[in-house]
Amino acid sequence: MAQALHLARSGLWTTDPNPRVGCVLSVGRTVVGRGGHRAAGEPHAEVLALREAGARARGATAYVTLEPCSHTGRTPPCADALIEAGVAEVVIAMTDPDPRVSGRGLERLRASGIQVRAGLMAEEARELNIGFVSRHERGRPWLRVKLAVSLDGLTAGPDGRSQWITGPAARADGQRWRARASAIMTGIGTVLADDPRLDVRLDGVERQPLRIIVDSQGRLPQQARLLDCGGAVRVASAGPAPWQRESVVWRQLPADANARIDFDALMAWLAEMELNEVHVEAGPTLAGALMAAGLVDELLVYQAPVLIGRGSPMMALPGMENFDQRLHLELIEQRCLGVDQRLRLRPSTRADVHRG
Amino acid sequence: MAQALHLARSGLWTTDPNPRVGCVLSVGRTVVGRGGHRAAGEPHAEVLALREAGARARGATAYVTLEPCSHTGRTPPCADALIEAGVAEVVIAMTDPDPRVSGRGLERLRASGIQVRAGLMAEEARELNIGFVSRHERGRPWLRVKLAVSLDGLTAGPDGRSQWITGPAARADGQRWRARASAIMTGIGTVLADDPRLDVRLDGVERQPLRIIVDSQGRLPQQARLLDCGGAVRVASAGPAPWQRESVVWRQLPADANARIDFDALMAWLAEMELNEVHVEAGPTLAGALMAAGLVDELLVYQAPVLIGRGSPMMALPGMENFDQRLHLELIEQRCLGVDQRLRLRPSTRADVHRG
Repeated sequence: MAQALHLARSGLWTTDPNPRVGCVLSVGRTVVGRGGHRAAGEPHAEVLALREAGARARGATAYVTLEPCSHTGRTPPCADALIEAGVAEVVIAMTDPDPRVSGRGLERLRASGIQVRAGLMAEEARELNIGFVSRHERGRPWLRVKLAVSLDGLTAGPDGRSQWITGPAARADGQRWRARASAIMTGIGTVLADDPRLDVRLDGVERQPLRIIVDSQGRLPQQARLLDCGGAVRVASAGPAPWQRESVVWRQLPADANARIDFDALMAWLAEMELNEVHVEAGPTLAGALMAAGLVDELLVYQAPVLIGRGSPMMALPGMENFDQRLHLELIEQRCLGVDQRLRLRPSTRADVHRG
Repeated sequence: MAQALHLARSGLWTTDPNPRVGCVLSVGRTVVGRGGHRAAGEPHAEVLALREAGARARGATAYVTLEPCSHTGRTPPCADALIEAGVAEVVIAMTDPDPRVSGRGLERLRASGIQVRAGLMAEEARELNIGFVSRHERGRPWLRVKLAVSLDGLTAGPDGRSQWITGPAARADGQRWRARASAIMTGIGTVLADDPRLDVRLDGVERQPLRIIVDSQGRLPQQARLLDCGGAVRVASAGPAPWQRESVVWRQLPADANARIDFDALMAWLAEMELNEVHVEAGPTLAGALMAAGLVDELLVYQAPVLIGRGSPMMALPGMENFDQRLHLELIEQRCLGVDQRLRLRPSTRADVHRG
């Protein structure tokens, strides 16, 4: 299964909106077939592994990171392919979170006399497709907020400058997180202040994530650099489109009394677009508002060993009046990147550990 | 030498103002004597190791973490004891930073025909006595500033409360860093706001560090809890002592135009008291002023995975007007303690690595 997960990871930047899936076919300890799904419309991992195995698939054990599909999408059902090939046993890491197929693939396999086991390395498999799982289980994408901050929690100096807080290793890593996302989302404030491109600038990148701008008042300039990188742009705005352009789709969404896009509507729109992982690179206002609304699933924090003293806070959290209101997170991973640290945190579900 | 360093570490909380020193005597691969210095006035590590070895010291190799002393302090010179015992070879990690003895112990040993090598695990030995080294090499103690902060760089909420940002593991670790310090220093602001005890509350602690209060206007209340814990207190004040008490010594020091104690005078006073490591637990004003003045040698940061949003910054850094003025640090150690992280940082000497 570890090999199958490894194969699945080869599709990290490309399978979207499909899940990353890997499959290994083995007879005893001999691997006879391997497959990793590459992109939507291309063969699934199971089919690739069966192709490699050929006749050796008969009587083999299939290790698949996700329950084989039982429905016909752009490709025929993989459960049927495994049955036809005469596979004897199927071990999966996790069932499909998609309610259309969840459990049905396994049923189909079992009904054909194939021995089925589920749950091997389930945690790793789930993490690999955290956005796909979120979309199907919760009806909304996984929101990952990326921030580059100083040790004293600031993202820019008193002069507004921030380039570069972190070093090259951290910035390159940030590009890789962009590459795996379905979309990169920011606020109009960041566009107007920094004019970012928000694209993926890495060798070998085939798929550019969608760029999404939260721009309630339709202030996105037609000269914004992010419009010149190729790739699609979607803008959430409270009013009608101020201008039109082929690569840009404006979406009118309700706004609140402060002329901020309503987050429920925003999340529903993101879900509607079938986005798995949404990578947010926003300023303190949007990032803080999403955090305070409980919509942030993960923080990806690049922390530089510098002290800035005064400047932009990493998040403007509305309504924080006292110490007891602080938001508890859980540090799920720490890594050093050059002189910087990368921290991944998620809202804490373990309130007990925080009591003194 | 690793064993000798281990023995030296056993005196981490007790040797002050002496250095932590360990000694191992071996004949071939057989250890015949071990010693770790425990406290000032008690036998040095070499003497303890020679005692254990007895006649087996003849022809042995001595591994000592610090150059054996050649002068008579409270105990006779260790170099002479090694010579008399007939030790054949002496390997030291580092020479004594004390100019009174630096190199002389080795000379004395060499003059007696003993083979001498220096520099084995020198870095580890130096770190173990970083304060002692600082006092002798730079004429001032090693200043370590301890901070407990949130991910967004705050030490307290908008209501001023801060207990407890970090969890029990981080707080217990903080006690151990207090225990090894010569003195714990804070500002009057912290005393008035939090009324801390600033003592070491750990099982088996024999030596309480000195408590030092920077209190230019002599506002230290006679009811302050830190006066009730036993142990000595020193107060740096710009004026004469407002009151007297047996355990409290007031020291009048010059102040600047803003009625702040002059840092040069403060550092000279700390050096005069023969302090090795000074552990600073202060508020943003004092910590920031020391940092901006370039007097902080190390930051001991306990970072909790929480977001507070608004409140006390970790440091108020005067004169920070733009991003280029940010202070570069080097992360020398990272460790997880319960749900929190402990970061140790030092002012960076490698400006090159920070260029993008």
